[in-house]
Amino acid sequence: MPQSTTERLDAARNAGGGLLSRRRLLGGGLALGGTAAAATLGVIEEARAARAAPEWVTVAGEAVRGYGIPAAYEAHVKRALIQIYKDLAPGFSFSGTPLQLLRGTITPNGLHYEVHHGGRPKLDPAQHALMIHGLVERPLKFDLAALDRYPMATRVHFLECAGNSFFNAIMDQPMQAGCDMLHGLASNSEWTGIPLAVLMQEAGVKPEGRWVVAVGNDAPSLSRSIPMEKIMADGILALYQNGERLRPEQGYPMRLLLPGYEGNMNVKWVTSLWVTKAPAYTAGESGEYTDLLSDGKALKFSFGMGVKSVITHPSGTMSMRGPGLYEISGLAWSGSGVVRKVEVSADAGKSWAEADLTAPVQSRAMTRFSLPWHWDGGPARLMSRAEDETGAIQPTRTDWKKRYAPSNFMHNNTIQAWQVSAAGSVENVYT
Amino acid sequence: MPQSTTERLDAARNAGGGLLSRRRLLGGGLALGGTAAAATLGVIEEARAARAAPEWVTVAGEAVRGYGIPAAYEAHVKRALIQIYKDLAPGFSFSGTPLQLLRGTITPNGLHYEVHHGGRPKLDPAQHALMIHGLVERPLKFDLAALDRYPMATRVHFLECAGNSFFNAIMDQPMQAGCDMLHGLASNSEWTGIPLAVLMQEAGVKPEGRWVVAVGNDAPSLSRSIPMEKIMADGILALYQNGERLRPEQGYPMRLLLPGYEGNMNVKWVTSLWVTKAPAYTAGESGEYTDLLSDGKALKFSFGMGVKSVITHPSGTMSMRGPGLYEISGLAWSGSGVVRKVEVSADAGKSWAEADLTAPVQSRAMTRFSLPWHWDGGPARLMSRAEDETGAIQPTRTDWKKRYAPSNFMHNNTIQAWQVSAAGSVENVYT
Repeated sequence: MPQSTTERLDAARNAGGGLLSRRRLLGGGLALGGTAAAATLGVIEEARAARAAPEWVTVAGEAVRGYGIPAAYEAHVKRALIQIYKDLAPGFSFSGTPLQLLRGTITPNGLHYEVHHGGRPKLDPAQHALMIHGLVERPLKFDLAALDRYPMATRVHFLECAGNSFFNAIMDQPMQAGCDMLHGLASNSEWTGIPLAVLMQEAGVKPEGRWVVAVGNDAPSLSRSIPMEKIMADGILALYQNGERLRPEQGYPMRLLLPGYEGNMNVKWVTSLWVTKAPAYTAGESGEYTDLLSDGKALKFSFGMGVKSVITHPSGTMSMRGPGLYEISGLAWSGSGVVRKVEVSADAGKSWAEADLTAPVQSRAMTRFSLPWHWDGGPARLMSRAEDETGAIQPTRTDWKKRYAPSNFMHNNTIQAWQVSAAGSVENVYT
Repeated sequence: MPQSTTERLDAARNAGGGLLSRRRLLGGGLALGGTAAAATLGVIEEARAARAAPEWVTVAGEAVRGYGIPAAYEAHVKRALIQIYKDLAPGFSFSGTPLQLLRGTITPNGLHYEVHHGGRPKLDPAQHALMIHGLVERPLKFDLAALDRYPMATRVHFLECAGNSFFNAIMDQPMQAGCDMLHGLASNSEWTGIPLAVLMQEAGVKPEGRWVVAVGNDAPSLSRSIPMEKIMADGILALYQNGERLRPEQGYPMRLLLPGYEGNMNVKWVTSLWVTKAPAYTAGESGEYTDLLSDGKALKFSFGMGVKSVITHPSGTMSMRGPGLYEISGLAWSGSGVVRKVEVSADAGKSWAEADLTAPVQSRAMTRFSLPWHWDGGPARLMSRAEDETGAIQPTRTDWKKRYAPSNFMHNNTIQAWQVSAAGSVENVYT
């Protein structure tokens, strides 16, 4: 005999506030959202006949095309244009991935986040080359055709701007916005390109060449110093993103990909790798991307992104559709390796349940986590807390703020809390 | 002391015809394609000053945008519109993924292959629903909003048309074309949707419900019968592809995803799942997608796609850029599980070397294989041969043709051979 709904929910209990276990919940036919349908095909056919059939079942549709685009009905699925600092410099601009409208782990290329210090260059690849020079035996120059013959590597990795989640870092009151505005400067792609170690070995790095100053072929010539160890360990000269050539806003025709390192170090439109003894202390690293601490000192370098997670479903600005079963779903990542665990709370942190992680969980890549939730229709506070393979755990906002100067907005990997009201609204709250 | 180039090539030898081992080749700085560059930054600056700087480094570029598109210089990267059967029925049309222009394993959504029996419907999702009916306890209807609450699964899987590689199957002389035309009815995506088992359990399948007849919401109402075992084992109602909503040509707003099964069974724009005792013997399964054998009999059903591989770099219509080192790279997949091994030959099958597989190798997903190759500038015949976890191996064209009637073009998973001429052209050849 089937159990009652109450019995099944009790049996699947995972933590307070209605958090359930997927394994114990599924398999028994619990009703979620389906509504009673016409019981027989005859009735369905009758219903069909009773109304005018839509055009798409009466006449042939459109023919195949060379390059597909999203459905017209999905025009709202776009990057959020984040209008801060827009008068700081020409082309200094941001757009955030609409994480709350996406599912899975891959960010489609059209929706990958952007941070440009000088806009998106209309770069002609025939006039672009990469130079490796400085402390090397053989300075070398590579154009796209030359690079096409090299061995390539393919890996899934997230990219995240060091300044992602800055509104939550610096605003005294939580801003009411969606994940695109609050946390959208983070995306995840399958990158393909040439291991930088192969190119460096061909150039022959001299023993004293311990750093690489990477320079972009854009108006600001964005430059960052990168330790040679990182370049040789797993750096990639990325040429392809999710199978196709990089999009212009992602560094077409080539960019650095430094798994786990803050976004701006993954220099877009990269044209020069200058091997040096010491870092160059460029504007990017000595000014813009420096973390000011609470004791008045500044962190010289802070390369790796911290362990982080955010619940995307439900999330800020969404509305619940009445009590009952939902899936809580979100994304977790860490610049230090694989995500080991994500815990979810529906009662403001009083109790936590471990979420399911979608396989394969890959190092320094976004991982989808999920957990069934029975919302009783009352106020609830949802939070997620990720832990990576090094044992690092997301801090609370209060703890994180203690470390930094009030003005710091870099490297905010704090726990995001969403407050669900009895009316079903979902709001950004601090905890 | 560094070895000479000849010594290093000898040490890395993997099989005849110049096939090398990546592990033994790399790590020593062998020159591939880099050219000597200006040796110091001073010289580079001088060179810069000597010519007019391009516009993109002198003025700010374009601002961020809601949805990105490929670079204008990549306009040639599009699906091949395959003009066969175009007069068979309105909207019966094909387009092939340009596998030879892509790298990695994910097919970007704009380039996923298409096969439409009645064109691409301009379907309004607000007027679309999925019904589950027939031999069930509770016939149910689901719209997009209802489905949004369900637990979702995310998996990377290939899709391949049963008729992929049909030119090689039926043409007496090998057609000279690229991978897009020859093998492009195969693509690979990260799919996210609701396990069909969850929806079926909610509807309550009666014991005698052993088949599911799936019907698409397009003009031909494309219909296929699917064993209930497959539906319950790993079928997905896919709603998202590579993170975003399905594109119209991929079944927006919902399609079936039956990992490893021939493309047309993964019914696009799916609107009805009719649970039955027996297959419906629809036109699709009793006519169009039936394999005629050499003994005059026809295969009633042939669901799963065979183990297959194709070298994409280099491949048909490409030109080599002179002798020296190249990376041979391609894609392998199987409808029966993971690809266990891909072997490559550069001497027309006389000797074979095992290629490197890009991790993670996932079940019923495309896997990228690669191997360094030293082309001596003479004629060479490249072939790849995949083996899956069941031990199945790609057949030669000769062996495969023996099994089927001459007119059959379905399920062609034969070994592809590319003939490289001394002039560097790459041609499709039969072996």
